[in-house]
Amino acid sequence: MTITHPPLSAARPAEAGVARLDQHLTSPATQAVLRVQSRILSAARAFLSEHGFTELLPPLIGPVTDPGIRGSKQVDVDFYGHKYKLMTSAILYKQASLLGFDKIFYIAPNVRLEPLETAVTHRHLAEFHQIDVEIRDVGRDDAMRVAQQLVAYVVGEVVRDMPVELEALGRDPESFRKVVEGHFGRITHREATDELVGLGHPQDPAAEIDWRGEEILSARADNARFIVDYPKGSRGFYDREHPDRPGVLNNFDLIAPEGFGELASGGQRESDYATLITRMRETGENPSKYGWYLDIAREGLPASAGFGIGLERFTRYVTGVDAVWKASAYPKLPGVVSA
Amino acid sequence: MTITHPPLSAARPAEAGVARLDQHLTSPATQAVLRVQSRILSAARAFLSEHGFTELLPPLIGPVTDPGIRGSKQVDVDFYGHKYKLMTSAILYKQASLLGFDKIFYIAPNVRLEPLETAVTHRHLAEFHQIDVEIRDVGRDDAMRVAQQLVAYVVGEVVRDMPVELEALGRDPESFRKVVEGHFGRITHREATDELVGLGHPQDPAAEIDWRGEEILSARADNARFIVDYPKGSRGFYDREHPDRPGVLNNFDLIAPEGFGELASGGQRESDYATLITRMRETGENPSKYGWYLDIAREGLPASAGFGIGLERFTRYVTGVDAVWKASAYPKLPGVVSA
Repeated sequence: MTITHPPLSAARPAEAGVARLDQHLTSPATQAVLRVQSRILSAARAFLSEHGFTELLPPLIGPVTDPGIRGSKQVDVDFYGHKYKLMTSAILYKQASLLGFDKIFYIAPNVRLEPLETAVTHRHLAEFHQIDVEIRDVGRDDAMRVAQQLVAYVVGEVVRDMPVELEALGRDPESFRKVVEGHFGRITHREATDELVGLGHPQDPAAEIDWRGEEILSARADNARFIVDYPKGSRGFYDREHPDRPGVLNNFDLIAPEGFGELASGGQRESDYATLITRMRETGENPSKYGWYLDIAREGLPASAGFGIGLERFTRYVTGVDAVWKASAYPKLPGVVSA
Repeated sequence: MTITHPPLSAARPAEAGVARLDQHLTSPATQAVLRVQSRILSAARAFLSEHGFTELLPPLIGPVTDPGIRGSKQVDVDFYGHKYKLMTSAILYKQASLLGFDKIFYIAPNVRLEPLETAVTHRHLAEFHQIDVEIRDVGRDDAMRVAQQLVAYVVGEVVRDMPVELEALGRDPESFRKVVEGHFGRITHREATDELVGLGHPQDPAAEIDWRGEEILSARADNARFIVDYPKGSRGFYDREHPDRPGVLNNFDLIAPEGFGELASGGQRESDYATLITRMRETGENPSKYGWYLDIAREGLPASAGFGIGLERFTRYVTGVDAVWKASAYPKLPGVVSA
């Protein structure tokens, strides 16, 4: 997929509302946010280690990366004369790694050149991280259960351990009560679409829910909720189709309450070689680009389900800051040249 | 600095001795090594957190990166029409971050296009990680003390907690006794040069010690040892010159015992604006490339010292494997196209 960016006059950080790096790092608010982020990571690692997950360090670059990145552009790099990509997500490596480990996670850095207009959404960064989880031989609902437990646990740890930071940021710990208890909501993509259309927000039932729609759904819920069963065509080839419901993917998004929007995406993965080839072709991907991945798939990719939590978005939700760049130590906004 | 790679016929993984990803990940030896690596990381995090360090997530790309990378090539990326680099090391960001935090660390991914001939040294990866530590308002010897304590602690934790993995890898826990006790050796770069020349290994006293020289020094010691006081010209502009010994840098390398070679590099940092400009010019760097960094330095960079431990090299030393690519989940050898 090729997105053409309009010709650029270098946007200056101030114009996009992002602070200069020294001002950003010397701000007590930034310091509080980054201390919370550090606690989010230590809590996530503790939870996942205790549940038998091995942490691996993901690749940064490779011959192919996740193509299912909805409107954003991949970054090419020249690796000794060969065209490599920066990871937009390491999903293909997660699947392959289950050959060696039943449960894995990454704290994975990703780069996606989002369209320039997203610089002002307060929700998009060109460089960000995911808490990237994958589990062998389980189904979508198992992965959702792990995501729910992980999010509830991490938020609970922050509420318990970081009252000073939350108070300094003006974030009421009481607002997390339902999330910490778990019992996240669950609606289908079709129900979400109906809800949005009923509210006057145009939403194509065959397409991904846009970030504005996610924000609306998020603002109307008093707990986190899952949206399940996205239509084929809205996601990458690796999200598995329901075997008995053609056109519907066995996947999910997790939406935060209070208008903070999407926190995570996940699903059951396709692992069948022939189906992967078909799905690649359906999504406009050329299978010949996926050399090592299809070589492994031909001999047998493990069945799996998993998810990725957007770390900066999660941090934004927990700290309540009004823009996701405030949840990054070195924020990179789409199109904005800074540090 | 521009290194020209000879024209390439794509090297195949097998020719470079590196396993295909599925064979690599299904190998019990790989699994043992990666479990040890995971324990190295958790031990390093525990040690550093306990000593008041904040973990930050480093940037992947930026307008400039560490130029002092001795013979390897930086990777360009196009960031919305602007030429960015993949981080070869995040040293410049470490210095700036001390404006907000007195003690920081990263587990930092780096990419360096090492010369093709290093594919067979068993010591070089094009993609690797550093345990990257920086401390405000301390000197070089303080940073060395932290490096020594950190390495000794981490190795001790692995010896205590991973006997099954070490045994499976044929690594005798007894070989770590001296390292775990600390008291690493210390010689100057001049003494190291004399030692190498005395052994018949050609070593220019004005230059970096090459990897073969490091290996020789490493094989002759029964404990880790520091090499201090590298000559100016052998390192980047950010390594501070001794104020009363012109031409000598207040820096260090840490060499493993048993022939495993270099584990870490560090030093006191230059933070004075005018001196940074002079040092950039001396090292052939154009100051106008370093926009955001010099903007901050003009208003005052914190004084600091710090170091980076090569995670895969450290893992190789602890596990005793014969090549550093075996200490990476997704190994990328210089010039070798794989997964």
